[in-house]
Amino acid sequence: MHRFVSAAGRAAGRGPGSCCRGAGEEALRGAVGRPPRGVRLPREGTARWSSAAKASAVKISEKASREKILTLESMNPQVKAVEYAVRGPIAHKAGEIEKELRKGIKKPFTEVIKANIGDAHAMGQRPITFLRQVVALCTYPNLLDSPSFPEDAKKRARRILQGCGGNSLGAYTASQGINCIREDVASYIERRDGGVPADPDNIYLTTGASDGIASILKILVSGGGKSRTGVMIPIPQYPLYSAAISELDAIQVNYYLDEENCWSLDVNELRRSLNEAKGYCNPKVLCIINPGNPTGQVQSRKCIEDVIHFAWEEKLFLLADEVYQDNVYSEGCQFHSFKKILYEMGPEYSNNVELASFHSTSKGYMGECGYRGGYMEVLNLHPDIKGQLVKLLSVRLCPPVSGQAAMDIVVNPPVPGEESYSQFIKEKESVLNNLAKKAKMTEDMFNKVPGIHCNPLQGAMYAFPRIFMPSKAIEEAKAHKMAPDMFYCMKLLEETGICVVPGSGFGQREGTYHFRITILPQIDKLKILLEKVKDFHMKFLEKYA
Amino acid sequence: MHRFVSAAGRAAGRGPGSCCRGAGEEALRGAVGRPPRGVRLPREGTARWSSAAKASAVKISEKASREKILTLESMNPQVKAVEYAVRGPIAHKAGEIEKELRKGIKKPFTEVIKANIGDAHAMGQRPITFLRQVVALCTYPNLLDSPSFPEDAKKRARRILQGCGGNSLGAYTASQGINCIREDVASYIERRDGGVPADPDNIYLTTGASDGIASILKILVSGGGKSRTGVMIPIPQYPLYSAAISELDAIQVNYYLDEENCWSLDVNELRRSLNEAKGYCNPKVLCIINPGNPTGQVQSRKCIEDVIHFAWEEKLFLLADEVYQDNVYSEGCQFHSFKKILYEMGPEYSNNVELASFHSTSKGYMGECGYRGGYMEVLNLHPDIKGQLVKLLSVRLCPPVSGQAAMDIVVNPPVPGEESYSQFIKEKESVLNNLAKKAKMTEDMFNKVPGIHCNPLQGAMYAFPRIFMPSKAIEEAKAHKMAPDMFYCMKLLEETGICVVPGSGFGQREGTYHFRITILPQIDKLKILLEKVKDFHMKFLEKYA
Repeated sequence: MHRFVSAAGRAAGRGPGSCCRGAGEEALRGAVGRPPRGVRLPREGTARWSSAAKASAVKISEKASREKILTLESMNPQVKAVEYAVRGPIAHKAGEIEKELRKGIKKPFTEVIKANIGDAHAMGQRPITFLRQVVALCTYPNLLDSPSFPEDAKKRARRILQGCGGNSLGAYTASQGINCIREDVASYIERRDGGVPADPDNIYLTTGASDGIASILKILVSGGGKSRTGVMIPIPQYPLYSAAISELDAIQVNYYLDEENCWSLDVNELRRSLNEAKGYCNPKVLCIINPGNPTGQVQSRKCIEDVIHFAWEEKLFLLADEVYQDNVYSEGCQFHSFKKILYEMGPEYSNNVELASFHSTSKGYMGECGYRGGYMEVLNLHPDIKGQLVKLLSVRLCPPVSGQAAMDIVVNPPVPGEESYSQFIKEKESVLNNLAKKAKMTEDMFNKVPGIHCNPLQGAMYAFPRIFMPSKAIEEAKAHKMAPDMFYCMKLLEETGICVVPGSGFGQREGTYHFRITILPQIDKLKILLEKVKDFHMKFLEKYA
Repeated sequence: MHRFVSAAGRAAGRGPGSCCRGAGEEALRGAVGRPPRGVRLPREGTARWSSAAKASAVKISEKASREKILTLESMNPQVKAVEYAVRGPIAHKAGEIEKELRKGIKKPFTEVIKANIGDAHAMGQRPITFLRQVVALCTYPNLLDSPSFPEDAKKRARRILQGCGGNSLGAYTASQGINCIREDVASYIERRDGGVPADPDNIYLTTGASDGIASILKILVSGGGKSRTGVMIPIPQYPLYSAAISELDAIQVNYYLDEENCWSLDVNELRRSLNEAKGYCNPKVLCIINPGNPTGQVQSRKCIEDVIHFAWEEKLFLLADEVYQDNVYSEGCQFHSFKKILYEMGPEYSNNVELASFHSTSKGYMGECGYRGGYMEVLNLHPDIKGQLVKLLSVRLCPPVSGQAAMDIVVNPPVPGEESYSQFIKEKESVLNNLAKKAKMTEDMFNKVPGIHCNPLQGAMYAFPRIFMPSKAIEEAKAHKMAPDMFYCMKLLEETGICVVPGSGFGQREGTYHFRITILPQIDKLKILLEKVKDFHMKFLEKYA
């Protein structure tokens, strides 16, 4: 046996600029690797791969293929354990059905409606004009001379570009984000919170909120065995949390939201959950999602105080996921930031409680998911840890700069007196008013269906109705090795083309079943959608009665 | 003691939409938390935080502050172990000096020059017009009607938008990236590699190359103790690798590049390194950086064949970091992709070797770092693992969509006959020709300085010269608890304002010292920069002689 050198390789040899020393023939003696006979090796730069050669390669592939290095058995078991239902099996199935539709395969519907994800623009929502004008100006600064762009947009674009290396969106920024944008975020927080001070130094721009949440969790997790870090999360939760916890091999500590009381958070339940967890891990982190995803509740000021007090008392690091802060619809509900309440509770709290809160360009009225913009404000971080956090973020260099620019417009929109103000407000209010209408309509429609109960959609952009599952359906689901609500959602998808996410992907009390559906489709379309869900549900109940 | 409820909290109570149940007073008995006396708590929506109140809060902070939850002792030890020299202590110091300059503090220089990072636009390189036109059109589609944008740019923008949900950059894309862009990437790879087939299904768009590399490593790492995954990396390396390995608690297995032979890669050294590693871990991954960062060598075809054969023989998963594929300057050097050579070695290799290769929008001639665009092509992945990889990526939803659009233009630039072709080629060649000139100039200038030796900069965008350190300097560095080359680089920064990264941040053979400097500054500026480094070096040698 001798070492294999391809024809092309032999021809190439080592040129003057070659940067590889002799391969040490003696060390390689005994190595196998003769090329299978009959396979033409194209020469560099000349040969093209004919389709015959491709076919031949594929044919040999089947024979030659040997055991893989990376398999389900050898892979990272924590990654294997990750589940992310929002883009999980149901979304995968939706993709397959779409392909079938494109091939002309007949279905009882003509399109798949992806109500599984809060993706506003995909559902036809138009971008906020001002935001896109500013980002376009930053992208192609020649437009700064164009009379078709308003001055207030140009002013913001110039300011952002001045914060960029070489005045270009193409330069890396500081890992924490562009300074002037962090200043704008701080001003926004001060305005939002009635003047509670915010320090730009505590602001970190992120690649969507997900990136910030995962980074904070990453830095928090430590210990082994019973001293492994426990992370308290609501059930139902947004599955980014369970996924990050799994990736980090931390311990997921569930506390249950109270469905009977409009998905409210009860401090007694936090305490129960914490006390149990202390028996098997070191609970160190408490995650809150407000307004709730998938559950849509908006926390009262009193509840937030209780939670902060609990975290303070129990020495828990607080994570407040507040990406739906602009999405509050129900009368009597109001968004209160954890930061604001923390400060109002006095310095014993505001100087001590370690709190990270998160916001995003993806939700609200702008729905700019694709920009992957976001920020986090982190309070009372130990100065040493601040250095560690910046170091961790610096490995990924910086968040996408056009996402940073988009974030800037969310926190620094046109103000009264500016040229773009009226159009901006019109666009913003149109989106939010429509969402409020759709939230009410969805709740009402679901609650008219026998076997469906839906709590008020106080905020966010989803309904999470509870569905009654007949025992025959549960049995059939089990026979298919599926969670009963997964079985339900798969049937719904197959029969109507509507893609929603089963409650089991978010977590729910045992024996209860739900699904999450976004209310983002345009109002007429949403109405039809809900009617279809209703019809499907009635037939489902009938079939499995 | 009784439970603390702020004035504002008492006033607010629980409204009709309140979503928090009674906090269970009995459970909270015994909790402390009375607000410190004399601190005014502003009421919701009315009070502003006066500066006096702020000062008072700060003052009490010092008294009230108690032990943190998150400290250097309690944090994730793997994150603590991460080092990322490119944005490490030296970049931090540079930032401090910049602040001092802004304050008017006198220094022997007027500006800090950040030659520590490959950040083209920050160094004054202009963006490629066509790329920015397409991204601007995608951002603000009203511009599709503007006569000031060329038709070929509009055509590409329309195609990208058609691939986006709701025809908007603001929609999430598939986690693997927009289909038509992955198709363009596949076509690019086929053209680049002389017709070797590429399947869009094997392409994953990423948030810069870093994100792709970290994701693949994440999925690969498993085992504990002696069966922990070993990851072979070149020394010197780009510190993303050591950082990711540390974060994942994998085992870093060093193989040394041969400085005496122009930083070449010797398969005998790979074998030595692997055999040693087998004694303490399970080496499963081999990382290659070609063209080299920080070392600038370009691998010969022969060397790549040797490496592939070695990986095949030893069952190693190959990671080929090819982000500098457009940055090849030396005569006689040429970029060969691992993918292409793999196919030319025949199906025994091309059907078996598991290979992930990475590219980016950040380097090359475009230097669009801020867009965080990139892709990876992953070959011979087990189908189950493909599912696992997509699942892992889906937790972060999708790469930034404007970065995906930028990547599309890199792989699908104007072609002869198109309106923008001549300007595009002029801009591209101007950047690359300048880089080639600067590569040669830098090598020549360094090699004229006594005590500095610099290998040819065959590719990439850095020089990594070796510096002679007098023993007195080494002693003084040790007295300051610094690596000798860190000491050198800190002095260089303090005396000249030039920020470079010490070799110890990349790894180097014991007893050798280097620094990495980017050649991106404009040619006149680079010349002055190199003269300054030379003067500093001469004085340094003199001082510590």
